[in-house]
Amino acid sequence: MQRRVRLRDVAQAAGVSVATASTALSGREKGGTTRLSEQTRQRVRQAARTLGYVPSEAARGLVTGASGRIAIVVPNLYQPYFSRLAETLINELARHGLRSTIRLTKDDPERERDAVMGVTTRDADGVLICPHRLRDELLAGRRPPLPVVQIGANPTAGVARVAMDEFGGALAAARHLVASGRRRIAYMAQMDGAGGPRLEAYRFALEEAGVDADPALIVQGEDWDRRDTGLESTIGLLRSGVRFDALMCSNDAVAIGALRALQAAGIAVPRDVAVTGFDNTVEGEFATPSLTTVDPGTDAMARAAVECLVAQLQGEAHEAPAEAPTTLIVRDSSR
Amino acid sequence: MQRRVRLRDVAQAAGVSVATASTALSGREKGGTTRLSEQTRQRVRQAARTLGYVPSEAARGLVTGASGRIAIVVPNLYQPYFSRLAETLINELARHGLRSTIRLTKDDPERERDAVMGVTTRDADGVLICPHRLRDELLAGRRPPLPVVQIGANPTAGVARVAMDEFGGALAAARHLVASGRRRIAYMAQMDGAGGPRLEAYRFALEEAGVDADPALIVQGEDWDRRDTGLESTIGLLRSGVRFDALMCSNDAVAIGALRALQAAGIAVPRDVAVTGFDNTVEGEFATPSLTTVDPGTDAMARAAVECLVAQLQGEAHEAPAEAPTTLIVRDSSR
Repeated sequence: MQRRVRLRDVAQAAGVSVATASTALSGREKGGTTRLSEQTRQRVRQAARTLGYVPSEAARGLVTGASGRIAIVVPNLYQPYFSRLAETLINELARHGLRSTIRLTKDDPERERDAVMGVTTRDADGVLICPHRLRDELLAGRRPPLPVVQIGANPTAGVARVAMDEFGGALAAARHLVASGRRRIAYMAQMDGAGGPRLEAYRFALEEAGVDADPALIVQGEDWDRRDTGLESTIGLLRSGVRFDALMCSNDAVAIGALRALQAAGIAVPRDVAVTGFDNTVEGEFATPSLTTVDPGTDAMARAAVECLVAQLQGEAHEAPAEAPTTLIVRDSSR
Repeated sequence: MQRRVRLRDVAQAAGVSVATASTALSGREKGGTTRLSEQTRQRVRQAARTLGYVPSEAARGLVTGASGRIAIVVPNLYQPYFSRLAETLINELARHGLRSTIRLTKDDPERERDAVMGVTTRDADGVLICPHRLRDELLAGRRPPLPVVQIGANPTAGVARVAMDEFGGALAAARHLVASGRRRIAYMAQMDGAGGPRLEAYRFALEEAGVDADPALIVQGEDWDRRDTGLESTIGLLRSGVRFDALMCSNDAVAIGALRALQAAGIAVPRDVAVTGFDNTVEGEFATPSLTTVDPGTDAMARAAVECLVAQLQGEAHEAPAEAPTTLIVRDSSR
């Protein structure tokens, strides 16, 4: 059996110190240390490849205290918004030489807390979390023991946050519906979590237009990540007999379900009822009719979140990052 | 500052040996060792919780040689089939006390090889891979250095595989189209990878029905995970002027794009052209018209794949697992 190739063998073959070989192979350089030339890095990597060197992750973890792995924490992957966000974060982390491990919280507040507090994320150097239910009281004044960046949702005390302009995005959608002459605009809302600023924007746009808000037009339901929720909530709204000429949905998944319910009821979109979503999923782009939606700037958010996390990993204080701008995308479901 | 709580403190508080405490907290027991009673396990976990014990992953890795983490390797997460599969695998692994780390191969054969050969998956105890491009020649006769289970695609020498009945599923879809009176059935194919047995089934069903296969009805394109590919390929087929009354698509993503292209061209589905997909994604269920598709038995495959991997991790020889059965789901796009 062959002797295991060790880091010192690689260093010797490349003509560098063991420390330099380690830095070149880790794919990461801690802030403050000397940067290696691309040439040195290449030489070390070539030597590692030639010798068939495979680092021991566990040993490396003990030496550097770093795993090179970031926990990506999302409620689920069945909501296209979350699978898209997770994919973007994985790719963005890879650009920084970081790997990812995924935790699905399934909308459980305690799972979100345990991820932020390092209970379920001990195997990671940091956490990127897209929370649904995280609240200050869950952390009970404690600070996360490892770098954490929250993407979206309500701010959490002691946690860096990258947000999208939820109010601005929803306002653009609501104003678009008002401008196209709709007056009986229903809102399918998640009261808790993402619903907040979006619902506020809806109310603001109605008030601005001098339209009386009718509480019968606010629809709530369970599990706003499922198309089924949009389907069932829309059926409920239709059965209630309340008249509406537009349906502003808190996300694309719900809007896709709403489109199906309206179609089954023989209601023409957008002629009888205009529909808008939020998230700009590819699914909405390919829906029939194609879905008017708000682009949340996922790429910009993911980039900002990873940069903020990397700064924390390098021991820099994180600055409160700016909100990513949102963009209204008008398609067939509302024109 | 508080002294860090150590495993021996937990063992002492629970009145068990350090080895027993370790086993109870790892969530895994290697094959062959004595199994712990649920009561002991609970007592140790309670003690760990009370004392605020947090295991050091790196230290544990060096002692046990195991990370408790499995690499899930998929081409991407934007194809709903892969995000659904990844989610199912993450949940199934969690039931076995295992965590997951994700690698996206982006259809790159070398990335698939490097994942299987442990180059990019050294931080995992095993690999679950859903390959697109893996071929025997890529492994050049070498065996993976760690437990690997491949889900779907062509068999790879030396790699355990859990498959779906691709031929049977596609055959059911093709026979359904033939039985409904369609004779000019186009096939949107991926020649490489998943296209193989599905295309064979299409040809078999035509032959069985005494229908001459027209090569002009076989459509190929790039990147079969994108709805855009289905859209563009269908536009190309329409422009070619070849007549067709059905479109059998290699997956739901492509079928969603095809539906959009047909709709834009004013072609009624299913009256003028029937459309079928493959994967049974929720998106297809909510499409307009709802999509006839083949359910690939994702849950059964994921369960079988994880069981096969766990058996390998426990040092047992893996048995060649049975193919998961597929089921035709007939919806509005073909009736």
